[in-house]
Amino acid sequence: MERGLFISLEGPDGSGKSTQIEFLKTYFEELGLPCVFTREPGGTPISEKIRAIILDKENSEMDDMTEALLYAASRAQHVAEKIRPALSEGKIVICDRYVDSSIAYQGYGRQMGSQVAEINAYATMGCMPDLTILIEVDPRVGKKRIAAGERDRLESERIRFHDRVLSGYRKLAEEDPDRVIPVDGTGSREEIRDTIRGYVDAALRAKGYIE
Amino acid sequence: MERGLFISLEGPDGSGKSTQIEFLKTYFEELGLPCVFTREPGGTPISEKIRAIILDKENSEMDDMTEALLYAASRAQHVAEKIRPALSEGKIVICDRYVDSSIAYQGYGRQMGSQVAEINAYATMGCMPDLTILIEVDPRVGKKRIAAGERDRLESERIRFHDRVLSGYRKLAEEDPDRVIPVDGTGSREEIRDTIRGYVDAALRAKGYIE
Repeated sequence: MERGLFISLEGPDGSGKSTQIEFLKTYFEELGLPCVFTREPGGTPISEKIRAIILDKENSEMDDMTEALLYAASRAQHVAEKIRPALSEGKIVICDRYVDSSIAYQGYGRQMGSQVAEINAYATMGCMPDLTILIEVDPRVGKKRIAAGERDRLESERIRFHDRVLSGYRKLAEEDPDRVIPVDGTGSREEIRDTIRGYVDAALRAKGYIE
Repeated sequence: MERGLFISLEGPDGSGKSTQIEFLKTYFEELGLPCVFTREPGGTPISEKIRAIILDKENSEMDDMTEALLYAASRAQHVAEKIRPALSEGKIVICDRYVDSSIAYQGYGRQMGSQVAEINAYATMGCMPDLTILIEVDPRVGKKRIAAGERDRLESERIRFHDRVLSGYRKLAEEDPDRVIPVDGTGSREEIRDTIRGYVDAALRAKGYIE
């Protein structure tokens, strides 16, 4: 095996992504495959420090371009320090959000356009997922699922923003249909789990991890 | 006056840049002109937080691309929150280091090449200095001038790195001779002050600040 398997999970806030990642953790433990679960923004100590700046409510005067560059910086560190080394050891990397989040949230949601993808090409340096699971839920459903109480800056954005994010995600799936697989997020958590497992199994098989 | 005047000061570590900025502060006070003195990395609260991550010795495993993107993020915020608003009010902005530092230190010093300039084009969004004073000193002289004691991560880099930085600065001056003006940094501080003042006066006159 020349390189591991890189899987990212994407979806609007409240799509049930975290629940599905827990299911995947259990599944990979059962299979006994070498894997690394990680997340963005974050994933390394330096990336976590950058994440803290992005999400700090005190930084409300943050410019959109600053935010996009900070996400890219956090990603560059995550790729260099964690994702690329794990893949080169033949491991399976499962990442909660990756470059598609930046394109959906900043590029489409904040309407910054193609420059977000351009900036992120420097951050990823060609390290792209083999499979991206996109859990689709209507923003009106997603918002209801988010627990009340303190919400971070992004989560307190308006519903129209989240509509643009979802349509951005859908465009990414159209543009790269071999990589980005949309999954209906309105079923039961077990139904969604089984659908995702089908795509993951196919990717594992293609790379020779399972038969 | 449509727009203020933007002046940046550049030079290798230990070039005497800080001393010259103090002289410029006194000079602009004497002239009674509306001006803003600022610096990079930093210049706004968010930029300072990003600066702290870059300079923290704990972050020794920082990838070059992460660093370049963090400098760009800090700069984007500085431009959006401080430099551009001051210029649009007709003020004179004097900045201790700007985009040329990134190109000289990361692009040439760390040999990252043209991608540093490309990334920074997103950060500056075309907001470039009218005049850049480049104080040139031999790295072997510059290093001696740096006070002993705790040195930050960049300052403790080797002399060959600083040789590349200086030659990078010289290339920038060659490529953009109307903007980047090299000043010999080996004379007395008063000689250097008077030379810089000559260039600053010309820029002030061109913009109608003085006669």
